[in-house]
Amino acid sequence: MTSDKLERKVRGRRGRQRDNNLTAPKIIQRPFEKLIRSYPPVEIVSDDQLENIHQASLKLLSETGIDVLDVDARAIMKLAGADVKNGEMRVRFDPDLILEVIENVPSKFTLHARNKEHNVIMGENNIAFAMMASAPNCSDTDTGRRTGNQEDFRNFLKLAQMHNVLHITGGYPVEPVDIHPSVRHLDCIHDYITLTDKAYCIYSLGKERVLDTIEMTRIAHGLSRDQMRKQPCMFSIINTNSPLQLDIPMLQGIMELSAMGQPVVITPFTLAGAMAPVTIAGAITLQNAEALAGIAFTQMVRPKAPVMYGGFTSNVDMKTGSPAFGTPEYMKAQHIGGQLARKYKIPYRSSNVCAANTVDAQAAYESVFSLWGAINGGANMLMHGAGWLEGGLCCSYEKIILDIDLLQMITEFLQPVLSNSEEIALDAINEVGPAGHFFGTEHTQARYRNAFYSPILSDWRNFETWREAGSPVTIERANAEWKKRLSVYELPDLEPAIRDELDAFVDKRKTEGGVATDF
Amino acid sequence: MTSDKLERKVRGRRGRQRDNNLTAPKIIQRPFEKLIRSYPPVEIVSDDQLENIHQASLKLLSETGIDVLDVDARAIMKLAGADVKNGEMRVRFDPDLILEVIENVPSKFTLHARNKEHNVIMGENNIAFAMMASAPNCSDTDTGRRTGNQEDFRNFLKLAQMHNVLHITGGYPVEPVDIHPSVRHLDCIHDYITLTDKAYCIYSLGKERVLDTIEMTRIAHGLSRDQMRKQPCMFSIINTNSPLQLDIPMLQGIMELSAMGQPVVITPFTLAGAMAPVTIAGAITLQNAEALAGIAFTQMVRPKAPVMYGGFTSNVDMKTGSPAFGTPEYMKAQHIGGQLARKYKIPYRSSNVCAANTVDAQAAYESVFSLWGAINGGANMLMHGAGWLEGGLCCSYEKIILDIDLLQMITEFLQPVLSNSEEIALDAINEVGPAGHFFGTEHTQARYRNAFYSPILSDWRNFETWREAGSPVTIERANAEWKKRLSVYELPDLEPAIRDELDAFVDKRKTEGGVATDF
Repeated sequence: MTSDKLERKVRGRRGRQRDNNLTAPKIIQRPFEKLIRSYPPVEIVSDDQLENIHQASLKLLSETGIDVLDVDARAIMKLAGADVKNGEMRVRFDPDLILEVIENVPSKFTLHARNKEHNVIMGENNIAFAMMASAPNCSDTDTGRRTGNQEDFRNFLKLAQMHNVLHITGGYPVEPVDIHPSVRHLDCIHDYITLTDKAYCIYSLGKERVLDTIEMTRIAHGLSRDQMRKQPCMFSIINTNSPLQLDIPMLQGIMELSAMGQPVVITPFTLAGAMAPVTIAGAITLQNAEALAGIAFTQMVRPKAPVMYGGFTSNVDMKTGSPAFGTPEYMKAQHIGGQLARKYKIPYRSSNVCAANTVDAQAAYESVFSLWGAINGGANMLMHGAGWLEGGLCCSYEKIILDIDLLQMITEFLQPVLSNSEEIALDAINEVGPAGHFFGTEHTQARYRNAFYSPILSDWRNFETWREAGSPVTIERANAEWKKRLSVYELPDLEPAIRDELDAFVDKRKTEGGVATDF
Repeated sequence: MTSDKLERKVRGRRGRQRDNNLTAPKIIQRPFEKLIRSYPPVEIVSDDQLENIHQASLKLLSETGIDVLDVDARAIMKLAGADVKNGEMRVRFDPDLILEVIENVPSKFTLHARNKEHNVIMGENNIAFAMMASAPNCSDTDTGRRTGNQEDFRNFLKLAQMHNVLHITGGYPVEPVDIHPSVRHLDCIHDYITLTDKAYCIYSLGKERVLDTIEMTRIAHGLSRDQMRKQPCMFSIINTNSPLQLDIPMLQGIMELSAMGQPVVITPFTLAGAMAPVTIAGAITLQNAEALAGIAFTQMVRPKAPVMYGGFTSNVDMKTGSPAFGTPEYMKAQHIGGQLARKYKIPYRSSNVCAANTVDAQAAYESVFSLWGAINGGANMLMHGAGWLEGGLCCSYEKIILDIDLLQMITEFLQPVLSNSEEIALDAINEVGPAGHFFGTEHTQARYRNAFYSPILSDWRNFETWREAGSPVTIERANAEWKKRLSVYELPDLEPAIRDELDAFVDKRKTEGGVATDF
C-alpha cells in the first residue's frame, strides 16, 4: 500500500466536496483552454540561409555520420537503409533516406491527459506550456536552497495541477533524491497520476523504467495496450549526446515509446562553444543533424509515430564555460530552430530558461527573452515553463509564481483583438467628447472588471504607498503568493478501480525490487 | 558667461587628450551604428480589422471632430479645407482631406546630430533608441529618490552620450527644477549641445521657448535658418490632450517646428479605461483619430514636414486608475499602432516603459515586454529607452544600466545570422567528431572572444560562487556599474566659435529674463 493512500482517502473526498460547496478560496485565472499563436511566427533567416543549414545537416549525416551506441538501434537503421558497418558504431544516412522517412511525421497530434479536459494539441499553431523539469535542487526564500526531495516534488506537481496556464506537468520538477533510484520512477509516476490529471513527461532511463511508466500510464488511462498505441498519453525528452552521439538509454527510449505510439521530443544539447561550434549557424546545423537523425529513427521504429523537434541550442559564457540562457544568441537559435521544424512540418519544442541565481531582474529579463524567442519562434511546446533558475540546477517556488504570471500575460497577449463596432465604441467616444473621462460610461462600466489582465505580482501602487508598505520587491510578493496558492490545492478525481490497479502495480514492482541500479 | 565655461576649458581639452592617449578605461560596447530590424514586423490584426479601426477613426474626425484650442491653428485648418465654424473650437475633417494631406508625409528622414557620425534615420526598417525623458524625480540606491535637479540631469546626459546603443538623448531625462522655469530651457539645451553631440528632443512649451531652442540648435549646427528648414536637427513630442483635444502649446509647437522643417511626434495619451475606451480597439481608434489630426495639421502647416506617429496607448489599473505599462494590453496596442503607421507609411514611435517602483523582476519583465512590443510592432524610434521607472515619475541610475544592457541585447539579436560555410563550420564539426569538445578547435579559438554578447549585469557564476560573493542581485550590480561608467565620461568636441555664439545667446536671453512665467 503506497504511503499516501490514507491521505488520498481523506483529501480526495474533501477535494470533491470543495468543488461542490465552493468553500475553498479560488485562484483567479482563465479557464484551462487551447492556446493558439494568433499571428505567423517570425523568420529571422531567409529561405536561402535556411536551406544552407538544412543541406549542411544532411551532408553531415551522410558523410560524417553519427555514433549510435545501441546494437538493436543500429539493426533497425540498417534495415531501413542506413549505412551501418559491422562492428562500427558510426551510422551514416543518405539525405534521401532522411527526407523520405521524416515525411511520415504527423504535423500535429493530441496529447491525452487523464482528465480529457486537459488534453492538448501539439503542433501547427498550438502552444502548450509545461512545468519546469529535472532540477537537482529546489528553493524558496524562507528555507533557502536544498537538494530535491519528495515533499517539494509533490508541492511542485500540485502547483502545476492548479494553474490552468500550465497545460502539462513536464518531467520531475525536482529530482526527489530521498527516494531510492530503483523505485523512484514508480513513486514519481504514481504522484503524477494521483496529484495531477494533466499529461506528463517521463524519463528514458533504460528499457525497464520506460516499460513500467508505459504500464502505469496505460492503467491510469484505462486503456488496453492496443488502444494505447493509438493514443499519446505521455512523452519523453530524448537528449542527444552532442556532438553526434545517441546513447543507449535514449535509443531504448525511442524504441519502446515510438513502438507504443507515445511521443518523444528529440532535443540535441548543442551549446555553442562547447558541444557545438561557436557560431549560431554551426551550432544550429549540428542541432539539426542530430534532431533529424533521432526523428528519422522514430519513423524507422514505427512510421507516423508522434515526435517533436526539440531546440535547446544556446551559448556558453566563454570566460567560464557555463551555459547561458535567455541571451540574444539563444533567441536567434529559438527562431531558426522553429524555421527548420516548420520546414519539416514537425511540432517544435522550446524552453523558458535563465541563468540567474535568484528571482531578480536578471531572472525576469532572461526568461522573457526566452519566451519572446519561443512564442515568435513558433514553439508548440514550452518546456521548463515555470520554476527554472540557475541554468536548470534549481526549481524555485518564487520563480514558479513569476513564470505563471509571465505565461498568463503571454496568454492574454495572444488573445485576438477584435475591432467590431462594440469594441471600437464610437458611441462611447461621442458620449464622452473632448476633455472628458471614460470611467463613468456604460461601455466602461459593463467591461472594466475583466477588461485587462490583472497580474499576480506587479505592484502598481505609487512610490509613496509602496515605500510605506516596506518597499517589497517581486520575489517577496512571489513568496507570499505560492504559499497562499498551495494551501488551496485540491486533489483531482481518480476512479477508485484505477487507483487500486495502479497501487497494486506499484506495490508489486516495489516487492520485486524495482529496477536494479548499479550504484 | 555660463557657469560651466571654465569646466569646459579644462575638461574639453582633457577629453580630447584622453581620446589620443587612451588613458581612460573604455566601455566595452559596439560602435555607434545604424540599427535595422532584420525581419518583417509582426501583424496581430488582419487587414480587415485594421481597416475597421482606420475607418472608425476617420468617421470620428469627420462627424465628432476634435477641439483645437488655438485660433491660428484653426485658421490654418480652415484654409486647408477643414470644417471650422466661427467662434467654435470644434474642427471636423473630411476623410478625403486627411488622406490627401498625409500622403505628403515623408516615410523616412534623417535626424541630424551635432556630430554627423551620430545622425540617425527615422522610418522604414530603421530603429533608434532614446534616453528616458521627462521624469520629475530621479534615484539611485545610494541616496534614494529625490526631485530632479541639474546635477542629475547632467549625469543622465553624460550616460546617454557615452553609450552607443542610445542613438539620441531624448528629452530632459529628469526635470531640473532647481533651475528657474523662465531660463530652464536655455540651460538644458545648452547642456544638450555641450555635454552630448547626439540629436535631442525639445519641449513644446509655448512659442517663445520653441523659438529659443530652434535658434540654439541652429547655432550648434552652424546653419542658416534657410539651411535648417531642410535639415531636421531636433524633434518634439506633441501629446494630444486625450480625448479629442489639441491644446495651445502643442499647436504652437507644431506650427513653429513644422514650419522650420523640424520633426514632431504626434503622440496621443490614450489610456484605455481613463482617457480612452476600456477596449484596446476603442483606445487605438481614438489614438489613431488624434494622431491623424495632428499629423494632418503638420502637413497643412508645411507639406512634407517630417512627422512621426506616436503610440502610447496602454491600460490603467482598474482598481486605482493608475497607468500600467508593459502589460499584454500595452503590447497589443504597440503592435496595432505599428500596423496603422505602416499603413500610412509614417515613421512610428513607441517606448520602453514599466510601472515598477524599483529595479526588480517586475521592472525587467514590464520593460522587456515593452521592448518586444516595440521591436516586433515595428517602432522606428523608442522613447524612454533607458532609465524609466514608476510609470515615468522617476529616472533611475540603476535602471539606466539595466536598460542599456537590454537594448544592447536586442541590438545583438537584430544582427543578421549568416549561414555561409565559414559560419556553418562543417570542417570543425568533422574535426571534433562524436563525443568531442569544440573549445580547442581553431574555428572556436579564432572567434570566441567576440562570438557572443557579454552582458553588463547578468551574473552567470554558479550558485555557490554567487552566494559566497554575498548573493548580489541585479540592482546592486547596476549601482556599481553606473558609477564606474560615469567616471570615464568624456566631453565631446565642440568648435570654440560655435560654443561662444551659443554662450552669448544664452547670456543675452538670460539678461532679457528668459521666458515670462505665470507662476
